[in-house]
Amino acid sequence: MKLLVVGSVALDTIESPAGRVEEALGGSAAFFATAASFFAPVRLVATVGDDLADAHVEKLRGRAIDLGGLHRAPGRTFRWAGRYSDDFSRRETLFTELGVFQHFRPTLPDDYRDAELVFLGNIDPELQGEVLGQVKKPVLVAADTMNFWIAGKPHELEKVLARIDILMINDEEARQLAREHNLVRAVARIRQLGPRTVIVKRGDSGAMMLGADGPFVVPAFPLHDVVDPTGAGDSFAGGFMGEIARSGETQGRILRRAALAGAALGSFCVEGFGMERLLGLHQAEIAARIKDLKDLMHVGA
Amino acid sequence: MKLLVVGSVALDTIESPAGRVEEALGGSAAFFATAASFFAPVRLVATVGDDLADAHVEKLRGRAIDLGGLHRAPGRTFRWAGRYSDDFSRRETLFTELGVFQHFRPTLPDDYRDAELVFLGNIDPELQGEVLGQVKKPVLVAADTMNFWIAGKPHELEKVLARIDILMINDEEARQLAREHNLVRAVARIRQLGPRTVIVKRGDSGAMMLGADGPFVVPAFPLHDVVDPTGAGDSFAGGFMGEIARSGETQGRILRRAALAGAALGSFCVEGFGMERLLGLHQAEIAARIKDLKDLMHVGA
Repeated sequence: MKLLVVGSVALDTIESPAGRVEEALGGSAAFFATAASFFAPVRLVATVGDDLADAHVEKLRGRAIDLGGLHRAPGRTFRWAGRYSDDFSRRETLFTELGVFQHFRPTLPDDYRDAELVFLGNIDPELQGEVLGQVKKPVLVAADTMNFWIAGKPHELEKVLARIDILMINDEEARQLAREHNLVRAVARIRQLGPRTVIVKRGDSGAMMLGADGPFVVPAFPLHDVVDPTGAGDSFAGGFMGEIARSGETQGRILRRAALAGAALGSFCVEGFGMERLLGLHQAEIAARIKDLKDLMHVGA
Repeated sequence: MKLLVVGSVALDTIESPAGRVEEALGGSAAFFATAASFFAPVRLVATVGDDLADAHVEKLRGRAIDLGGLHRAPGRTFRWAGRYSDDFSRRETLFTELGVFQHFRPTLPDDYRDAELVFLGNIDPELQGEVLGQVKKPVLVAADTMNFWIAGKPHELEKVLARIDILMINDEEARQLAREHNLVRAVARIRQLGPRTVIVKRGDSGAMMLGADGPFVVPAFPLHDVVDPTGAGDSFAGGFMGEIARSGETQGRILRRAALAGAALGSFCVEGFGMERLLGLHQAEIAARIKDLKDLMHVGA
């Protein structure tokens, strides 16, 4: 199935207990598309400045990623810098420089409009709505959002929620959005706003998917070495939607297999700074990680 | 197999967002034994004061719990009072009154000494060691501990760790004990101290078991209503060891089925104040909850 992502392509400066990396390729659309491309072709919509080195774009180009929707605008690329605490339990944003992202008005290339699967990365819900309006006949739409939009643009976000099938957010955001601490009740409220399935991301505790097919829990792969959690959620989303695109199914048990694929890609992402681990990944490693995740959950007779 | 637990029988006063309960029956041995008794007979070793109402003891007596090791001493029963925060994320101890527990020197009745399965509840590691020394030929020994003993009696705790097969602790305690934030590495260090299997309890994120049979993750059942988390860990342990006692197996896949039984009993415990939910539980509810937990983890073909 034809898969489309809209989001950011960014330059991330990251400090973690494992080290530091400066102006590494990142952004929700870059993580998502790279993760998804191991499963199915993906079309990317994003904007970058004229300062983005070609070498960065080349990292995305050698893959099943259509860059026809990657707009180059005069100005600087979106930059973000953050620092993880010693135990990775907290993340502090050091600075955010929107650059060309500030005036981003996504326009889909004509040959993107027949996309069947859409992932709306964590950007302004107004832009998410604009993109969705340009897709002719979406079959399955998933979206991410964050505290900034939940607090700052609740009305616009509600309009998006009414039009999507799957919302992927972290536990704190789910609680904030629903104004309810209990996650099961929070998700029930969010589902009343539109999405029939909600995936709650819980970091190193894995993810919980609540939808029509009953609750499903996918563990985080127990990692011996955590390097940089940046992009893990978008990598999860990429693996998830990529697996759906590959399979051609959009409901029932495929959602569970997709969540496993998502958990696998999310776990790889965390093993390197920025996108370095994802960019060097092989299909055999992914298959092995998915098998390991299944073993992790296998009770036996 | 013959199952033995040593721990506390206490009177708990608990405040949570769901309400308040005063001097309810509690304590690690009471929770453990009640949970285990749904699977197999269990022998209890603990001490209570002469102030404990018979009605409390009667709650335990009508079950597959041998109370021959429940010592009544002159004085007051161990009392604990705690308060959970609005979102259940923190617990504050309001007071601890050791009472007769202060001079507890557990002596096993003669007919307890042939126990094959032993659970050392969260008490002074010196006492844990004393109990273990009185068991003739233990086949499988599991233990719990807490930050208080990790910091206060590290040497005694290490001696216990060297003699047990399974350690069940929460994530923060695992990190504290191993002086290592990464849980996978923390568990690897703890396993070097003795226990071949470590079960890390993570509250509403479930539990992770790392041992010879490979890693296993059991989710927490997603509960619509949380009332009182007190005793959930001991109920998990009771379900876990009870299922092992019932099966007669002590290694391999039984550990995973035991962890599921533990997760089921832990989830019930949280649904009521103190032991009220456990005490009213039926076998059919347990079977249904275990099935629900399996479904929660079932990926399908």
